[in-house]
Amino acid sequence: MSATLTRSKLALLSLLLAPLSLAPLPLAAQAASDGHGPEILRYMEQIRNETGVPGVAVAVGLKGEMVFSGGVGYAELDNRTPADGGTVWNVGSVSKVLAGVAVMQLVEKGEVSLDDPIQKYVPSYPEKQAPITLKHILTHTSGIRHYKDGEFGPYGLWEARHFEDINEAIGHFRDDPLLFEPGTLYFYSSHAFNLLQGVVETASGLGFEEYMRRFVWEPAGMLSSSFDVPTRIVNKRGRGYVRNDRGLLVKPRYADPSYKYAGGGMISTVEDLARFGQAINDGTLLKPETVATMYAVHVDPVLQYRASGEPVKQEFKMALGFQLDQDAAGRWYIDKTGTVSGTRSVVVTYPEYDLVVAVQANGLPFDSRKYGEAIAQLYLPAPHGGYRPAR
Amino acid sequence: MSATLTRSKLALLSLLLAPLSLAPLPLAAQAASDGHGPEILRYMEQIRNETGVPGVAVAVGLKGEMVFSGGVGYAELDNRTPADGGTVWNVGSVSKVLAGVAVMQLVEKGEVSLDDPIQKYVPSYPEKQAPITLKHILTHTSGIRHYKDGEFGPYGLWEARHFEDINEAIGHFRDDPLLFEPGTLYFYSSHAFNLLQGVVETASGLGFEEYMRRFVWEPAGMLSSSFDVPTRIVNKRGRGYVRNDRGLLVKPRYADPSYKYAGGGMISTVEDLARFGQAINDGTLLKPETVATMYAVHVDPVLQYRASGEPVKQEFKMALGFQLDQDAAGRWYIDKTGTVSGTRSVVVTYPEYDLVVAVQANGLPFDSRKYGEAIAQLYLPAPHGGYRPAR
Amino acid sequence: MSATLTRSKLALLSLLLAPLSLAPLPLAAQAASDGHGPEILRYMEQIRNETGVPGVAVAVGLKGEMVFSGGVGYAELDNRTPADGGTVWNVGSVSKVLAGVAVMQLVEKGEVSLDDPIQKYVPSYPEKQAPITLKHILTHTSGIRHYKDGEFGPYGLWEARHFEDINEAIGHFRDDPLLFEPGTLYFYSSHAFNLLQGVVETASGLGFEEYMRRFVWEPAGMLSSSFDVPTRIVNKRGRGYVRNDRGLLVKPRYADPSYKYAGGGMISTVEDLARFGQAINDGTLLKPETVATMYAVHVDPVLQYRASGEPVKQEFKMALGFQLDQDAAGRWYIDKTGTVSGTRSVVVTYPEYDLVVAVQANGLPFDSRKYGEAIAQLYLPAPHGGYRPAR
Amino acid sequence: MSATLTRSKLALLSLLLAPLSLAPLPLAAQAASDGHGPEILRYMEQIRNETGVPGVAVAVGLKGEMVFSGGVGYAELDNRTPADGGTVWNVGSVSKVLAGVAVMQLVEKGEVSLDDPIQKYVPSYPEKQAPITLKHILTHTSGIRHYKDGEFGPYGLWEARHFEDINEAIGHFRDDPLLFEPGTLYFYSSHAFNLLQGVVETASGLGFEEYMRRFVWEPAGMLSSSFDVPTRIVNKRGRGYVRNDRGLLVKPRYADPSYKYAGGGMISTVEDLARFGQAINDGTLLKPETVATMYAVHVDPVLQYRASGEPVKQEFKMALGFQLDQDAAGRWYIDKTGTVSGTRSVVVTYPEYDLVVAVQANGLPFDSRKYGEAIAQLYLPAPHGGYRPAR
Repeated sequence: MSATLTRSKLALLSLLLAPLSLAPLPLAAQAASDGHGPEILRYMEQIRNETGVPGVAVAVGLKGEMVFSGGVGYAELDNRTPADGGTVWNVGSVSKVLAGVAVMQLVEKGEVSLDDPIQKYVPSYPEKQAPITLKHILTHTSGIRHYKDGEFGPYGLWEARHFEDINEAIGHFRDDPLLFEPGTLYFYSSHAFNLLQGVVETASGLGFEEYMRRFVWEPAGMLSSSFDVPTRIVNKRGRGYVRNDRGLLVKPRYADPSYKYAGGGMISTVEDLARFGQAINDGTLLKPETVATMYAVHVDPVLQYRASGEPVKQEFKMALGFQLDQDAAGRWYIDKTGTVSGTRSVVVTYPEYDLVVAVQANGLPFDSRKYGEAIAQLYLPAPHGGYRPAR
Repeated sequence: MSATLTRSKLALLSLLLAPLSLAPLPLAAQAASDGHGPEILRYMEQIRNETGVPGVAVAVGLKGEMVFSGGVGYAELDNRTPADGGTVWNVGSVSKVLAGVAVMQLVEKGEVSLDDPIQKYVPSYPEKQAPITLKHILTHTSGIRHYKDGEFGPYGLWEARHFEDINEAIGHFRDDPLLFEPGTLYFYSSHAFNLLQGVVETASGLGFEEYMRRFVWEPAGMLSSSFDVPTRIVNKRGRGYVRNDRGLLVKPRYADPSYKYAGGGMISTVEDLARFGQAINDGTLLKPETVATMYAVHVDPVLQYRASGEPVKQEFKMALGFQLDQDAAGRWYIDKTGTVSGTRSVVVTYPEYDLVVAVQANGLPFDSRKYGEAIAQLYLPAPHGGYRPAR
Repeated sequence: MSATLTRSKLALLSLLLAPLSLAPLPLAAQAASDGHGPEILRYMEQIRNETGVPGVAVAVGLKGEMVFSGGVGYAELDNRTPADGGTVWNVGSVSKVLAGVAVMQLVEKGEVSLDDPIQKYVPSYPEKQAPITLKHILTHTSGIRHYKDGEFGPYGLWEARHFEDINEAIGHFRDDPLLFEPGTLYFYSSHAFNLLQGVVETASGLGFEEYMRRFVWEPAGMLSSSFDVPTRIVNKRGRGYVRNDRGLLVKPRYADPSYKYAGGGMISTVEDLARFGQAINDGTLLKPETVATMYAVHVDPVLQYRASGEPVKQEFKMALGFQLDQDAAGRWYIDKTGTVSGTRSVVVTYPEYDLVVAVQANGLPFDSRKYGEAIAQLYLPAPHGGYRPAR
Repeated sequence: MSATLTRSKLALLSLLLAPLSLAPLPLAAQAASDGHGPEILRYMEQIRNETGVPGVAVAVGLKGEMVFSGGVGYAELDNRTPADGGTVWNVGSVSKVLAGVAVMQLVEKGEVSLDDPIQKYVPSYPEKQAPITLKHILTHTSGIRHYKDGEFGPYGLWEARHFEDINEAIGHFRDDPLLFEPGTLYFYSSHAFNLLQGVVETASGLGFEEYMRRFVWEPAGMLSSSFDVPTRIVNKRGRGYVRNDRGLLVKPRYADPSYKYAGGGMISTVEDLARFGQAINDGTLLKPETVATMYAVHVDPVLQYRASGEPVKQEFKMALGFQLDQDAAGRWYIDKTGTVSGTRSVVVTYPEYDLVVAVQANGLPFDSRKYGEAIAQLYLPAPHGGYRPAR
């Protein structure tokens, strides 16, 4: 054969090249434009080795730019779709801070006060022994319980039910007593956060998803974010995995997140989560003073309730929805993790440096916060100034 | 380094690009070796136009060769995975003839008689007003009811339950009365077929899936076939779609097929279904005399029971598990269709010509049998000999 | 998409092509020339899903042709080298039948008799309470023990020692008593087989590896086969993996197989193993009458010794080195499996059909024999003749 | 996409396709952005010619930027994985300065004093005839011996043992007498440095690797660095080689570095080593005054102990962990080399110019320091100002 490509071979070649567009292009492209890209990609591969998760995606936003976005491994395993920064996974409890921003927008507009009792917006939730305010909910100090064994009924089937209405969705915990008097202790509660759907809907007069789309996702450029509705076709949707008792990856038990959109029922991408963090920092979603309130320390020390025994002091501090953690150099950062149906997510923000790191993986266990903190170090200035030898 | 591409480098290149392109290359390759390939591919695209289904796959087995295998459109829509002859979809009621062959193998070995009452193998199914034999079940003349509204309980949640045991899985219809005396009328019943799982398990001493794997799928070369277990990762698995009330494609409501493996709970590919038909014809699965029994007309005319009104005579005849339909040229063929969770399947066999056509699509409605019959015509001899003018 | 390649697209293209350049080319090429190739590849991918092994390779030899050779997944995970039919892995106990053929060649030449006592060739192995013949060793009826806990000393470090000499290598079991009188029961023993190295060396006057190379590997075209010597650079060498107590893949503990070349210390490829089976069948390695002896049933029933309790009857029969197992259609086949340092191997032969299937995987557990048997079904004729309807 | 490709695009495409072989593309990309890249690449290839090492990797950090990162040849030879700036090799004694920075951080925090006796942190190490301080260890003036023949027992098998605990790992030298009174002479000792693991663990309360990850590797962006644990899967891990007595490359004898993490048991990349040097200079890891202490001359002249004969004066000077060497222009620089299991590494720093060069190769002998010094010259200003002719 000569060095030329005949027309027919050429046609074949171009046909072959055309569908390349389904490969994880943004990753490679953006990694190349970022000095830290290759290091992050290698780190992500190593995280896969160490955790056995099928795929990992990372996006980094810095001073208004998306300086890294990429994925390694697989978004889902049936068809081995590659993961990238645009892979859509459910974000679990990161939904709580997405919902939290919606609530803070309504506070900012004067439609809602953080000191309002939850029943003002969700009258179907009964009065308890003491008032529960929105701030209690946003700081996990409401005393409302978290999940408990057996609450989804025989075979857990009620978690497969699709709810059209938040009032119906809260039925399984509505009548349970509080764990402690609101404001006295800390106890993480997804159920409490789910009530915030009612706050947004009542105060805005819009459906929760419609509100999120118009006032959070679209303004922040989060065009791949939505509710996790199992029957929907979702472009570039990946899937989470768990391990069975033989240690092999399997799909998690089916669940319909319609009972917990505010607490853990949204889907997004690492790029969208990085945009979310940046859109808080740059004033797109909230006024600076509202951000200051949301990021402020509201609970410190965090004393975690235990059913039996004394409360346990936690190392983190509570902001509104977000928590604050400290890195090795002693710098505090803002973060929220999420875990649901075999995915792990985190958004980590260093507001002083306008730095946001979002990490997602589709396997458990996976310490997404630790990895997000580690990646953030690549973009932070040296804590100690710098050494200049005498000459 | 020279800029020339040697022949081997080009070959390498196309091979290298192949797995990336995500396009169904094997299809093209195989279509090219088959005179009817381009025609079938165009027909499949046209079927997509006419029905709006996301993807269609077809395989044709003729005299021991797989003469066509290919797909058009998408196996699933989240990640737009292309469909091809190896796409794995659930086959719905085609499971009934896969289970039927298992039963006939046990008949052949003398472990089971078609005249045995079902309770001999499934004692948890109670005696009814008249004896129900395996033959009644295989010909849909048992009088056992089919699905009825509300049988899966509030919100249909019991269809999301995973059953480990056939005795438990039959609980929702076990105690219902027969629709008519067994053997007197015809009424299609998946529930009745589900009982055949118990027949295979009791008679063979093996779990149903283990039996299918060892004695049906592996001998027939159906290496992509298995039970439809939602938590499993399944290589090349596609997905079925239905239309919502606005006419848009959505994913069907979640269901766990563990209560109906024999009646509609298996997954396969068109290639495997074509292998299945061929493995019946060529003696791999059954002895010729057993095939003759299975393909024989057992019910003719087929008088279909109606809850109110007289029975209605059907145009088809009943073999065992399979039915017999007639094409435009008056030729009878053997077939079985399946519908489940947004997929449609059919296997069509013309035993005299050792021809098997398998068709699958992942949207509804889709008259898979009609399309299978149409494609078969490409491979059948002219019914009238042929006109040769006098000279 | 426009016909132009933009700069970024070109950059993407080169990035995309880069990792591809290690793709399993021979696989794709050979699969394309074989109707069963796509099905086997899909099956191999599904095996990966079901077992979690990093890579799987398969080769099929039929009537003197290599009709399939391919791999899926990874030969090793540090650099994610793709597996293919030429990936070199250790074959574990498949070494036993490679050594067994060497012994049978020496029997054929009159240098060795199967009834000779092992001490004739390995005088360093002491006399026991009853004579142990080569045939006892080849049928696992010698009564010599298998591995036992703690035999490699503190921290198992003696398994990391490199032995230059078989007499030294047998030191840890040499003086242990027999489990039972030779010839009376069956007990699988790698230690017993390791003694065959001495038989080959004493009778041939060559080093064992030199003998294997000149009289087995090179005549059979097994040019990628050799001893597993850890310090050697080995082209296309993969690696085996095990799971740690968290269920994650890790590299197995280091071991130097120099004490067990005959019992489990060789490395090879599935292509070479398929060549091995074919070279037995076609007379390259042994005369037909010697093959007949080697494949004959020598122990039936196989009564397995137990330290406490009655012997247990096994379902297989023993040939020399190989065992005989039965498939679902009742056909007996010849096979040998191997397991070592995180790899699983098998060679399956149906001599009547001149069919050899070799399977390897680099993770445990992995039922290589079951998968080899399943793939073989694709190439076997139908057991029941075939159905031809009356016309 | 149209089927046509213009001739020029075709040429471009073929150029892109040509390097499909095994070329390290990311390298080329980064080299292109650096004026010295082509020169360094040619030099690296020439180093390969002169030394016969399989692969060489180099990274250069200058004033906070990674101005070069690349590799030539192979990271490992079984699968001919290309080397690049992200190839992970064990760094041998460069671990000593990584551990040294950890100790200096603890000094900075007041948790540790350089004048503390080692037994304060490692009580299992017995008192000797004279006090041994941390500073003695960091300057190789402790008098603790280095390796000696036979210390790993018969067949050297104790070097294959995995130690979970530093107290157990020091058993083979713990009770040996000092070579000389601490502080009086210089004698390089890995064993002495291994004791620093105990210092870090006791003073920080963290495991050594956990400390390194949180306070050294992650803050410095060294995300590919970790302990060398043989059972771990390590993304992009290469391998070192030695020559056998025939002069051919072979893999080195197996060793588990768990007894010497601080002295020689870490793995990293040239990029990470360059980041390490930069993170010292820029204040990420240590305060400027601490860097000044670490880089200061602590031993000068360096009088090296000899078992028989007078001490020998060395040309270098000792800082803490690092040494100081002088280039041809008389400029002193900071450096540390490492050699282990067939790899050679160096990190060379010119603090005044904020220049760090890291070099690694996977074969011996290889004068990594000489090559690092040579490459550094490319980035240093002319020592003599510059000649400007009068006009």
